[in-house]
Amino acid sequence: MREELGAEAVRRCDELGTLSEEAGRLTRTFLSPPVREVQRRVRVWMEAAGMSVRLDAAGNVIGRYAPPGATGPAFLMGSHVDTVRDAGRYDGILGVTLAIAAVDGVRRRGLALPFPLEVLAFSEEEGARFGVPFLGSRAVVGSYDPDLLARRDAQGVSVAEAIRDFGNDPAALPAAEIAAPAAFGYLEAHIEQGPVLESLGAPLGLVSAITSQSRLTLTFGGRSGHAGTTPMGARRDALGGAAAFVLLAEAEALATPGLVATVGQIAALPGSANVIPGRVTLSLDVRHPDAAVRRAAVERMLAAGAAEAARRRLEMEATPVFEHAAVPCDAALSAVLRTALGAMGLTAPSLVSGAGHDAQVLAARWPVAMLFLRSPGGISHHPDEAVLPGDVALAVGAMVDFLERLGGQRSGPAADDATGGASRGV
Amino acid sequence: MREELGAEAVRRCDELGTLSEEAGRLTRTFLSPPVREVQRRVRVWMEAAGMSVRLDAAGNVIGRYAPPGATGPAFLMGSHVDTVRDAGRYDGILGVTLAIAAVDGVRRRGLALPFPLEVLAFSEEEGARFGVPFLGSRAVVGSYDPDLLARRDAQGVSVAEAIRDFGNDPAALPAAEIAAPAAFGYLEAHIEQGPVLESLGAPLGLVSAITSQSRLTLTFGGRSGHAGTTPMGARRDALGGAAAFVLLAEAEALATPGLVATVGQIAALPGSANVIPGRVTLSLDVRHPDAAVRRAAVERMLAAGAAEAARRRLEMEATPVFEHAAVPCDAALSAVLRTALGAMGLTAPSLVSGAGHDAQVLAARWPVAMLFLRSPGGISHHPDEAVLPGDVALAVGAMVDFLERLGGQRSGPAADDATGGASRGV
Repeated sequence: MREELGAEAVRRCDELGTLSEEAGRLTRTFLSPPVREVQRRVRVWMEAAGMSVRLDAAGNVIGRYAPPGATGPAFLMGSHVDTVRDAGRYDGILGVTLAIAAVDGVRRRGLALPFPLEVLAFSEEEGARFGVPFLGSRAVVGSYDPDLLARRDAQGVSVAEAIRDFGNDPAALPAAEIAAPAAFGYLEAHIEQGPVLESLGAPLGLVSAITSQSRLTLTFGGRSGHAGTTPMGARRDALGGAAAFVLLAEAEALATPGLVATVGQIAALPGSANVIPGRVTLSLDVRHPDAAVRRAAVERMLAAGAAEAARRRLEMEATPVFEHAAVPCDAALSAVLRTALGAMGLTAPSLVSGAGHDAQVLAARWPVAMLFLRSPGGISHHPDEAVLPGDVALAVGAMVDFLERLGGQRSGPAADDATGGASRGV
Repeated sequence: MREELGAEAVRRCDELGTLSEEAGRLTRTFLSPPVREVQRRVRVWMEAAGMSVRLDAAGNVIGRYAPPGATGPAFLMGSHVDTVRDAGRYDGILGVTLAIAAVDGVRRRGLALPFPLEVLAFSEEEGARFGVPFLGSRAVVGSYDPDLLARRDAQGVSVAEAIRDFGNDPAALPAAEIAAPAAFGYLEAHIEQGPVLESLGAPLGLVSAITSQSRLTLTFGGRSGHAGTTPMGARRDALGGAAAFVLLAEAEALATPGLVATVGQIAALPGSANVIPGRVTLSLDVRHPDAAVRRAAVERMLAAGAAEAARRRLEMEATPVFEHAAVPCDAALSAVLRTALGAMGLTAPSLVSGAGHDAQVLAARWPVAMLFLRSPGGISHHPDEAVLPGDVALAVGAMVDFLERLGGQRSGPAADDATGGASRGV
């Protein structure tokens, strides 16, 4: 059965991969036109697995399955259905189709779980449209604020307007929140997006923590001028400072084990070939499992950047966009998942996730666990992103077994004690 | 009279400076919406100076003034009315309003010039919209080709479509050509856009030549990937290569006396803060009075860029956009202009123009001369671009006197011989 459910989970990712807001490549940002069809198909799949389905104002699709006799708080599973620009087909999406497959597996096997299951298909996690991530999961933990709603995309459309344009009501966002007592934990399956599991020959892995991260916007201000008539010595070229910063951030990351630093966006103004750039804005993303190491590295980058800017008679301004410490996965939930993997003969290495995930938002309210699937070539955020069908089948099997073991633990008072941290929030 | 005409020329620049396609800053690219009103006002000014006015398919406005008894080929004057993005108010525009003022001066003084005058207000010189410059003057020398018409702007609109959208007919472009025998020379007044005249304390200068120039587009190709999960050592970050290129082009220019190199445009794809750029495109503009020095410098930049790209496992591709040798101004026409300046007590230093000008396009067909006006602070392509009213009045006086002297030379056979090169193309 797990092969069949796994193949279906992959097929559904490939199917959603055809729904894009851009011709010829996969891009699906927050509440963009193709999202309505995504919602429709996810709903159909959830209902086919025996779930009742609701949509919330943030565009999340939530399916609920209650096994006969199940009561009390629900166990949550899911991931996101949005993508980066020019994306692969599995980042996020696979966590949703796997969660649906796991519910279908529970239903088909007639497992009498003592708790309901909810599958969350988050509308937004990547931050591609508004520069801030987790617009889906934030609604579920009730952390939408007015600043977030006022944030604008490149076309000047605010988050609130995007919600309204899609036909939803921003005033209904509070109703999207899932109260802490209504659930007791969350499991997210996700492609690793890196090379570790492949290098270990392991199809699946456990996430011990999600790495700490800083996101900043840097602006270099100089003076625009004519490209032909301004002598080199008289220039205050903002792009010279920005280019030097790109290289020094790279050098800092190369010199700090485990650190990654990325400048993914850069814009030079006024943006004419015959005009010296007077202003350059760029994004800086820095991650390390240890928040103190990351913070120190960011400080070194900014100090070196400021020195370089001063040398070039430029102004440099750094604006934090967000920052978070590492988010640990729950030890007890992870232990149940490790047992399930072990029962299938898998070693299940434990690794720190370099990517952010919805799990880190939900971790503020419930214990979370994450199951990683091997990424061929370590490739992600790229059309070549892939999964191995056999790995996906193993993931379905592990998730169903995990739910069964969790059900066994929660069906009696003695077993309940054994779940330890996993019962937090019940 | 020259003070009055000079003040009017400046006032008209300030007036056109309010006609922009962008709120809050001056940007007026090829056939953009405000151009219609620019055409209307230029026509009114030309008619007030006694000219008959025609428009051509490329959007140029051409005024013709025939003093009583004038016959034969016309003498041309003018410049362009488009701007870069976030421009100043005088680059190009002042050459148009000064040419109109000069005609008005000739008319008011009742000078019986033996030749007609034509003022050309070119629709496009900066290349801001389509990445290639001189869309106005190219039409006048008949060098529009199908490749040029097919070129597209950032919104995917072709040059031909832009002409059609404005209400003009691309098929009528050949009629915009001015045949070589219909004119015998061209004078362009322009702000210097650099610091030389100011540093010499000279209000006006003569251009000996327009510098040689290379414009290229460079593309760095790597592999996009996840910003959090791709180890630094495994990256093929296209922006790393592009940033290194920006700095090495700058270093090459700093090391080569008289060379200027500018990267004014840069775009990183896919352009998300959490994705390593897989592809970066940038513009490279390199200028030097000596084409051989420029060519050698560009070759060194490309060789160093290719080595850096190889070191980073990136592909680098360099596509020439255009290239031209230095364009000399006509010695005989310039001598007449120098005499006119000398008669006003001005020393009139001679300099190489680092900027490109319509004069270099017209030089393929007629002898050209250029009059530079001092640029306060050397500032251009920037809202702070300025001129001194006294300098503009001197320029009007010099242009009228130049025309009078040219008329004197051309009124008799003996004098005609004395113009030497200036009579080329008659």
